[in-house]
Amino acid sequence: MTHRFSRRVEGLRSSAIREILRVTGRPDVISFAGGLPAPELFPCALLADLTRAVLEEEGPRALQYSETEGHPGLRARIAAGVPFPADTFSPEEVLVTQGSQQGLDLVAKLFLDEGDEVLVETPAYLGALQAFRFFGAKVTFLPGDADGILPDALAAALRRRPKLLYLTPTFQNPSGLCVPERRREALRAVLAGSDVLLVEDDPYRELWYDAPPPAPVSIGLGRERFVYFGSFSKTAAPGLRVGFLAGEASLVRRFVLAKQATDLQTNTLGQHLIHRLLGHPSFPAHLERLREVYRARRDALSAALTARLGAELSFTAPAGGMFVWARLAGGGDAAALLERALAEGLAFVPGGEFHPDGAGRDTLRLNFTNSAEARLREGVERLARALSAR
Amino acid sequence: MTHRFSRRVEGLRSSAIREILRVTGRPDVISFAGGLPAPELFPCALLADLTRAVLEEEGPRALQYSETEGHPGLRARIAAGVPFPADTFSPEEVLVTQGSQQGLDLVAKLFLDEGDEVLVETPAYLGALQAFRFFGAKVTFLPGDADGILPDALAAALRRRPKLLYLTPTFQNPSGLCVPERRREALRAVLAGSDVLLVEDDPYRELWYDAPPPAPVSIGLGRERFVYFGSFSKTAAPGLRVGFLAGEASLVRRFVLAKQATDLQTNTLGQHLIHRLLGHPSFPAHLERLREVYRARRDALSAALTARLGAELSFTAPAGGMFVWARLAGGGDAAALLERALAEGLAFVPGGEFHPDGAGRDTLRLNFTNSAEARLREGVERLARALSAR
Repeated sequence: MTHRFSRRVEGLRSSAIREILRVTGRPDVISFAGGLPAPELFPCALLADLTRAVLEEEGPRALQYSETEGHPGLRARIAAGVPFPADTFSPEEVLVTQGSQQGLDLVAKLFLDEGDEVLVETPAYLGALQAFRFFGAKVTFLPGDADGILPDALAAALRRRPKLLYLTPTFQNPSGLCVPERRREALRAVLAGSDVLLVEDDPYRELWYDAPPPAPVSIGLGRERFVYFGSFSKTAAPGLRVGFLAGEASLVRRFVLAKQATDLQTNTLGQHLIHRLLGHPSFPAHLERLREVYRARRDALSAALTARLGAELSFTAPAGGMFVWARLAGGGDAAALLERALAEGLAFVPGGEFHPDGAGRDTLRLNFTNSAEARLREGVERLARALSAR
Repeated sequence: MTHRFSRRVEGLRSSAIREILRVTGRPDVISFAGGLPAPELFPCALLADLTRAVLEEEGPRALQYSETEGHPGLRARIAAGVPFPADTFSPEEVLVTQGSQQGLDLVAKLFLDEGDEVLVETPAYLGALQAFRFFGAKVTFLPGDADGILPDALAAALRRRPKLLYLTPTFQNPSGLCVPERRREALRAVLAGSDVLLVEDDPYRELWYDAPPPAPVSIGLGRERFVYFGSFSKTAAPGLRVGFLAGEASLVRRFVLAKQATDLQTNTLGQHLIHRLLGHPSFPAHLERLREVYRARRDALSAALTARLGAELSFTAPAGGMFVWARLAGGGDAAALLERALAEGLAFVPGGEFHPDGAGRDTLRLNFTNSAEARLREGVERLARALSAR
């Protein structure tokens, strides 16, 4: 029997990253491939204590069905904590999601009919491409420079009245780029005349290593013109699957209805844990520790790349986030390089998939948060061997 | 600015149940409305111990990103535990989902284009109607009798080649009905000649009060002809949001890809907890205790309804599950009755929404798992007062 799938299934592709991760579980492989935070920094003991406290103090409420909108206390904490002017969002304007990937699924459901246009950065986050393409979107990659997408290119694309503009302006995955304030201003000016919905994804904001990043691009846009996504996957623990979205009340109400039909609610226990973790006196120090460790790792990877491969790779050390984005000097095929690198015991993600078909084949994404400094340096040695084997 | 939503949004409705639950949070209201398990039976202390054990023994792995497919040990335990002949499913043929509601979202995504037909029971589970309608499905309610949907009606509907047949044959929500073996056989015979995909939702199977239920309808169908959904929401705790689906390998592979684009994975900690709970020596006794308490509640509600309202309501005490399904004798409007009942301090769900538009207005769903026996009896008194106020 042949299954009679929906047309949507034609847009369904596996993430190359998840496939690479599958073959790189071997302990002898150094992986720069995933987007994993450092597990040794997870607040395990604290979360064990918090679980006991939640189950003792909240009792079965922490295990029961709960509101689709999310834990009320957590929503209030998020509304107060987002990097927007005070009182921009009421708690009712926050929806707790099953990680920020769910926000992408929900926005696609609410806005995308087959063939609708979505604008993204070049390169773009793969999880967003998956979600948009699954709903039959026509994805347009906007050109950019070292400061982010080009305002003129955005203005030209907006004339076609695309449905969504998806941006990760702050320490983007995969490029690591943080759009500077001046470019944010220019983008806001272009957006002022449009009715596109800006989807601003901001999971890396707390992971800054040089200076706190500029305010979200969404600030200053009309309240019904954007939806803002955040996540606790990089600051607390990704396995709890707790993220959020914030936006104007009537828009968030639609997201709530869509979530109700999707999975009823985000897991209750995880929400209670995140709520307590955010309010715990040790949380600011935990964030500071993340920045300190990741800063040292970024520096170690950057220094090793410059020292060993300065002539063969070009890259800019990112000011935050989880990735160094590099380009093979004089062109080259990063996918072919990956095969040689795997033979040397190193995994990374070739950048082609973050681009329109056929582009970006000379780019690669290198994660630095999931490997200690010595391992980062050894990984660069392996990369050097793979490159010299060309 | 008017948002340019997708056409899909027209199919988006709030669940009346979730709205009723919202107004009935008051402690003075006795609620027969929700589909909530008894929180006092949640294994809270055990789950607190298991969390500590998981975090000590697995460490940060229990909080890290993990495979979209789910925790390998849990998948193996599910594959071995489903009520199918041994070795029907390998662990690779099981996908852990964010509750079984997510299974509905995923099957809708994979199979439904706008206007595609889905067959359901009359009455039907509201969460499924929400998911299917959100994807633009044309939902056909099949007529039934006291043993479930009518094989002849199914055969006639299958000639139109619907995409999906959605059934909850075992202690259905809302009807409480358990399709007997002879009817299951008749349905299998009709299905043998069709290429519809049977979606068998089976979250209530363990909640039997008289005798274990018959085997799933799916057994005996070709392996690529069905997908089987299960849940730990009724047997462990719904707030952990862990369910599963099982089916033939290439079909499950599609579900995995769809889930990847939807939320990456089910929460890791909840999966570890369910895995340990299922393997814990006390789990069979926990299930036995659930049955014992719920059996007594079913009996208390049934006895009170018969004694107080035997002339005004008709119902059959269910052999399992969470609901008594009743009909107002001589017709009547359950939605109007709800208003009077709320004034008396009782909530329930009028049955109209589980039906095609306009039908089933004389039906009501009464949950008995979430109230102790005295409260069930008091609720029936309030219902009696509301009925006499007609």
